[in-house]
Amino acid sequence: MDTQLRLDDRTPIRRGLAMNNKTGTIGVFDSGVGGLTVFHRIAERLPGAAIIYLGDTARVPYGTKSAETVVRYARGCAGILLDRGISALVVACNTASAYALDTLRQEIAVPVLGVIEPGAQRAVQATRNGKVGVIGTAGTIHSGAYQKTIRELAPAIRVFAKPCPFFVPLVEEGWTDGDVPRRVVRTYLEELLDENIDTLVLGCTHYPLLKPVISEVAGADVALVDSAEATAHALVDLLHHESWERGTASKPCHRFLVTDAPENFARVSRRFLGYDVTDVEWVDF
Amino acid sequence: MDTQLRLDDRTPIRRGLAMNNKTGTIGVFDSGVGGLTVFHRIAERLPGAAIIYLGDTARVPYGTKSAETVVRYARGCAGILLDRGISALVVACNTASAYALDTLRQEIAVPVLGVIEPGAQRAVQATRNGKVGVIGTAGTIHSGAYQKTIRELAPAIRVFAKPCPFFVPLVEEGWTDGDVPRRVVRTYLEELLDENIDTLVLGCTHYPLLKPVISEVAGADVALVDSAEATAHALVDLLHHESWERGTASKPCHRFLVTDAPENFARVSRRFLGYDVTDVEWVDF
Repeated sequence: MDTQLRLDDRTPIRRGLAMNNKTGTIGVFDSGVGGLTVFHRIAERLPGAAIIYLGDTARVPYGTKSAETVVRYARGCAGILLDRGISALVVACNTASAYALDTLRQEIAVPVLGVIEPGAQRAVQATRNGKVGVIGTAGTIHSGAYQKTIRELAPAIRVFAKPCPFFVPLVEEGWTDGDVPRRVVRTYLEELLDENIDTLVLGCTHYPLLKPVISEVAGADVALVDSAEATAHALVDLLHHESWERGTASKPCHRFLVTDAPENFARVSRRFLGYDVTDVEWVDF
Repeated sequence: MDTQLRLDDRTPIRRGLAMNNKTGTIGVFDSGVGGLTVFHRIAERLPGAAIIYLGDTARVPYGTKSAETVVRYARGCAGILLDRGISALVVACNTASAYALDTLRQEIAVPVLGVIEPGAQRAVQATRNGKVGVIGTAGTIHSGAYQKTIRELAPAIRVFAKPCPFFVPLVEEGWTDGDVPRRVVRTYLEELLDENIDTLVLGCTHYPLLKPVISEVAGADVALVDSAEATAHALVDLLHHESWERGTASKPCHRFLVTDAPENFARVSRRFLGYDVTDVEWVDF
């Protein structure tokens, strides 16, 4: 642990203070449990890797909060993971990626990957008619980060974006099937589908759990882009590029940190991972 | 301002460190905007009073978080208001009232009123058949605070409690009318109505904004108890009992503090107050 990098959320993370060794530990953080969809994909892609997941469950959600507050929280999360000696950081939260990625990249010395660039890239590859829909939290959509990134990659593509603030409560409630979710999804997607989009970016880590309903409402002609999958793929590329050496442990080493009660996290993690997480550690910044 | 009472959320609020003067300023805090329903009722009841409202919008919601975290946040909020010289504290958040009221009462020297006792009392007065329903956040319901308080007041009353985690997002989205809210409300209330309750406590400050739909689903025979109204009434009694002198300013002095971006608060406050709040101040603990 590099205590020089210890920080509270009011202290800037000083760039290059210490380059963490290439220990092969990947840090992943999210506002809460949603980022486990990203964690899960990374663990699949890098089965031998050591991964520390941090869920900022005491401050969740980020999606309804201001840019300043989200940046402050993202720096707090990054600081905790840097203290644990990570050698690569994945910002699994779309809202934090939208608001805080530039700040984090400027301030910390390990490679930082967000979920927006990989998702945007995948969408550009997927669309055939050049009409892409993006759904996410109010923060993610209003930041314009997906819209900007897609336009930079392919200026001819038209992007239709829509905040869907109700999707997170649906998923957290486990209400992902039946009449209410179907109506909520239909209400939000209506105007995007009216624009004849052929690709839809699920721009929030919770949304993959609503995939069956979203897919049913959107129809088979609309390709769904899951940022979690795209991010795991982009991480493998990034680590290869950085000549990053991953451990060859026969059993993967996964650790879970949270800022609110560990037992709540353990309870809901099954929905995201398909197995129970035990040994969750409480931390704070 | 009493700087002796300045504290961060890790420092205990020391009891009786300084008794704030009876300046006539009432402090009200909530996890976010919902407590404005309580603020509104207090302002109606005490038209000349100085009131400081604090919304912990950077950490909202409390209803999904653990008791330990909510107590920590409640102490942070109380500390900020004590620093401003309040002479009475209203905990407008049901979850914070459920988890933190005892701690706050032990630790601070000004009278503290929560929303649960007034709501419970009103429910006991209202029921004719002795069957009372209580709805609230997961935190409020799982704490058992309403159930316990009602049973202490009237042991013969049967209490049926149900967490309705979806109601807060509905209200915050302004989605308080139409088919989706009606279905959500029906889904949650079904089992309470099957128990033949004749009184329903709206145990969350957001819920009064869903009153028309809740009333329609519950039917005219079920009395709805609004804790906001009951709390304002109880506050007047408490202040009378404490020989509290309120100012006689011709224009009421209302101040609004928030921990997240002030402009967001100003925007949504109209839904709760019917007018625009200007001059919102950012604070943190």
